[in-house]
Amino acid sequence: MCQLLGMNCNTPTDICFSFTGFQARGGLTDHHRDGWGIAFFEGAGCRVFLDPRPSADSPVAELVRQYPIRSLNVIAHIRKATHGRVALENTHPFMRELWGEYWLFAHNGDLKDYAPALSGRFLPVGNTDSERAFCHILDTLARHHPANAPSIETMHALLRTLATDIGAHGEFNFLLSNGRALFAHCASRLCYIVRQAPFADAHLTDQDVSVDFSQLTTPADRVAVVATTALTDNERWTPITAGSLLTFVDGEPRDFGDGTTRAFVKDTIPPAV
Amino acid sequence: MCQLLGMNCNTPTDICFSFTGFQARGGLTDHHRDGWGIAFFEGAGCRVFLDPRPSADSPVAELVRQYPIRSLNVIAHIRKATHGRVALENTHPFMRELWGEYWLFAHNGDLKDYAPALSGRFLPVGNTDSERAFCHILDTLARHHPANAPSIETMHALLRTLATDIGAHGEFNFLLSNGRALFAHCASRLCYIVRQAPFADAHLTDQDVSVDFSQLTTPADRVAVVATTALTDNERWTPITAGSLLTFVDGEPRDFGDGTTRAFVKDTIPPAV
Repeated sequence: MCQLLGMNCNTPTDICFSFTGFQARGGLTDHHRDGWGIAFFEGAGCRVFLDPRPSADSPVAELVRQYPIRSLNVIAHIRKATHGRVALENTHPFMRELWGEYWLFAHNGDLKDYAPALSGRFLPVGNTDSERAFCHILDTLARHHPANAPSIETMHALLRTLATDIGAHGEFNFLLSNGRALFAHCASRLCYIVRQAPFADAHLTDQDVSVDFSQLTTPADRVAVVATTALTDNERWTPITAGSLLTFVDGEPRDFGDGTTRAFVKDTIPPAV
Repeated sequence: MCQLLGMNCNTPTDICFSFTGFQARGGLTDHHRDGWGIAFFEGAGCRVFLDPRPSADSPVAELVRQYPIRSLNVIAHIRKATHGRVALENTHPFMRELWGEYWLFAHNGDLKDYAPALSGRFLPVGNTDSERAFCHILDTLARHHPANAPSIETMHALLRTLATDIGAHGEFNFLLSNGRALFAHCASRLCYIVRQAPFADAHLTDQDVSVDFSQLTTPADRVAVVATTALTDNERWTPITAGSLLTFVDGEPRDFGDGTTRAFVKDTIPPAV
């Protein structure tokens, strides 16, 4: 199974600490050796680093780990190939533009017999089920709202329906972002944490590395991190309920009245350690 | 004025040598300090490295210089901002997908009062004249060929007309690639070299660095390099005639019978040094 990592913040934040643990899963502490990618929004722009080689020995991953790019929204992915050969064009996250915004997408899972009808406006370049799903999602968003981007709440409702439809074909955990919100759909395994004041120490699960967030933050900062499995072993991560879509804005999941987020918001304050 | 660099080859080739000289122009030997970017096709996939900081002191540029990514088509750009603030979303090359292919675009020049009517299928994310021109180009290609990619020759003819139309608004030197061809339009300043057997030494203009291509190549290799100004001082670079579009495939300019390439092909064999 692939590994997903996402970050959504209310202030530009670097992902170096989380990426250090995540990167180790690409061939060092786990067996996801079929490439990796990470994409950062910076304002309206987007930086995408892709490498079909294992992340554990990738010079590009080493650069990302050491280069503190500050971003409000990040999506990263380590690949265990199921559909599509190991190649750059099959490496997540995928990027397209819609409504003058870049969109990023990464998927964890496996869709069987999945061949959606596509209008041609968004077409896959590679041959993964994941990129087909991404094109279908954008096609549908564009068809429903041809002129302008709707509200995040409207996008959430549409994506929730789409995620259920596409999820009928198999396991469909995904992260999607337009730089303003991070949409996280859990089919089987995805969890998150919201870090906010009072900040505390965090220690990685995959490497013996700690950070004291109170030294790196201001009291107003709020950062949500979403991952396939918990990246730290001394914080409380909240599992996302299978079958639900959480939409993060400004570092926290938004409650759009559809029952998916209400239960989580009160659990997101990290325990004192 | 910005700086453009492009490469088109018949065998995957790294651009480390040319990039070393090019990178120095981003704040070291020249004054283009408003960001830089480079994009590599690898198969159908594409790696894009963007940095709004000067290339001469960019850790990302340092990675690219040392990491031999082998590619058939590369486009790089160093920016001197004219339209649009210094920001990631205004950093070239820009990327979109059309017909299931990625397209890359970088522009050197300045378009005045340029506000093309766009269908909405391709919209700029930033606010440069360059990205608007790119969206207009793809819009037009898609409108003329809604279902599938036409031949490179047909693309060349359409792009030639488009380049003339857009060029009425100002200086419009550009590099454009879909991973199969490199389209190079010269409005004022663009030159190229085709390196092929017998290979010889080359020495950079911007740094005291030499390379002996005969040690790095096979007799069948052919590599075209296109740049705003010559990158080496001991080879013969061919100026592209202002107002013409050259289309490079497999490391050489193609003659589509429109008079733009015929004159150049016989000049492209490098002199013995």
